[in-house]
Amino acid sequence: MTELPSEFAFIDWIRSRVPTDPDVPIGIGDDAAMLRFGKTECLVTVDMLMDGVDFWLHETDAAAIGHKALAVSLSDIAAMAAKPLAAVIAVALPKAGGRQLAERIYTGIAALAAEFQVAIVGGDTNSWDGPLVISSTVLGTPTGKGPVRRRGAKPGDWIFVTGQLGGSILGKHLKFKPRVREAIALHEAVELHAMIDISDGLAADLHHILEESRVGARIRSADLPVSEDAHRFDDLRSPIEHALSDGEDFELLFTVAPDDGSHLCIFPPGGVPLTLIGEITSERTCVLVDKEGQSTPLPPLGWVHSLENESRPQSSG
Amino acid sequence: MTELPSEFAFIDWIRSRVPTDPDVPIGIGDDAAMLRFGKTECLVTVDMLMDGVDFWLHETDAAAIGHKALAVSLSDIAAMAAKPLAAVIAVALPKAGGRQLAERIYTGIAALAAEFQVAIVGGDTNSWDGPLVISSTVLGTPTGKGPVRRRGAKPGDWIFVTGQLGGSILGKHLKFKPRVREAIALHEAVELHAMIDISDGLAADLHHILEESRVGARIRSADLPVSEDAHRFDDLRSPIEHALSDGEDFELLFTVAPDDGSHLCIFPPGGVPLTLIGEITSERTCVLVDKEGQSTPLPPLGWVHSLENESRPQSSG
Repeated sequence: MTELPSEFAFIDWIRSRVPTDPDVPIGIGDDAAMLRFGKTECLVTVDMLMDGVDFWLHETDAAAIGHKALAVSLSDIAAMAAKPLAAVIAVALPKAGGRQLAERIYTGIAALAAEFQVAIVGGDTNSWDGPLVISSTVLGTPTGKGPVRRRGAKPGDWIFVTGQLGGSILGKHLKFKPRVREAIALHEAVELHAMIDISDGLAADLHHILEESRVGARIRSADLPVSEDAHRFDDLRSPIEHALSDGEDFELLFTVAPDDGSHLCIFPPGGVPLTLIGEITSERTCVLVDKEGQSTPLPPLGWVHSLENESRPQSSG
Repeated sequence: MTELPSEFAFIDWIRSRVPTDPDVPIGIGDDAAMLRFGKTECLVTVDMLMDGVDFWLHETDAAAIGHKALAVSLSDIAAMAAKPLAAVIAVALPKAGGRQLAERIYTGIAALAAEFQVAIVGGDTNSWDGPLVISSTVLGTPTGKGPVRRRGAKPGDWIFVTGQLGGSILGKHLKFKPRVREAIALHEAVELHAMIDISDGLAADLHHILEESRVGARIRSADLPVSEDAHRFDDLRSPIEHALSDGEDFELLFTVAPDDGSHLCIFPPGGVPLTLIGEITSERTCVLVDKEGQSTPLPPLGWVHSLENESRPQSSG
């Protein structure tokens, strides 16, 4: 094939084929799906992590790999401002030393699960000649205010992120704490219009919100919370470019009405580190405004999910 | 390491570490787990299938692989006599031709999902240098009579299986229909004491019921429903040995009180093909009785889940 269709094109292909179902209020295309079981609503999300792509087993404590496997799915539940309840974990273990590896992975999973009161309720443990693969499925429940989706951003909304951005590959991607408590605290404090966790990169994930909400955005580069790690690269990309395009920050990106935004700036709930980085616009473009007030288009930089050849592109800037 | 600890030893290791939780009435160690969401109960199960272990991509239509991935999880829900509602699917696709492969896998999944009215609500699509891996998580709901567990078999119970056994590797493992409807019909018709789906092999899965129920069993070899495919092997194992030890039949194995057993022999619900193969005993041994009435021990022949080196052992008989 000559084209490089992305994961998102495939997801669109599937979405167009899946029938709508009144018992599935949120299906494919958000951070987690939501189902109705009678009168109860249940959120579910799955992630698969592979050796050599999402971690490097030969240089990493397997407990950190277990931590990450569960944490990425908890982060998806956090992005819906929901409460995680239970997880099931499936693994394909390399044959050599599989038992010790399994125990170490489980140790990392169990510690994070205990911290977030998530029950590990089942799994599937396999052994093979291939590299380590872990899939984590997390079930959760919405709070009384319901889930927060990617759609829902409105022109004039203020755009916030939690924490700091860029350089996660230098270590944070294996150690981060999913923003579950912060998301629920924000959801209680204000009316969250749209939210996503930053897994593909700020610019890429912002575009997901913009597409689903059918709006645009203006981001101020000088206001981006650039992490120290984003300064530690000896490459052609500036720290700001790293903050805009590095994947796996697993921070929350969300929009609120200006009144709620002002409130959050003064009273960040539970001490959540928040940064106001821009505004939602009615014009369906996404631009980056520099210190001099110059605007340039901000494309969905970040992790490109290609089903032919997955790669982290250099910034186009 | 000198020992070959099995998957089951690892599962026991995890079970001993997972705290009991009133919101998890069924945790690790059954065909599916059950959670409470408020007043609603939800079943969940996960399976991971790997190229070269559970299927062979180079010789198999990827739609059949997709079918199998969903079917094995539906079979776990069937083993609890529950109704599947929704699934999330994660895949790690080999880089070459990933998009076409993904579509073909999804086609197989979607056809089976439609047949069983299961909603595909989400997933995670990845690409890597490794072989194809698929994980399937299915959520379900118990019927009004609640789920059927592995524990619950009572001395004197009659032991039944659905369908025919052995030789699944010759094709059935990719094409089987999970016994969802049959399980629900049986559950409506009688009081099922214990049930499991035959994934590891009749003898191995029977042992799971016996261990969880703390009972023994006597199986009559002449009564085993040996499939035609079980006769098609040119190896040292007899067709009966294949029926006892081949994995992936994905038939139901269950026990009922003798009165209910008699009823099922006369009125198999919905035309389910049923065979009475033996009885549960109070003595905690498992024996095979041949045509002449001779008893020999029946060990848990079948798929051995080793975390060091997974292999299908030859029969020890």
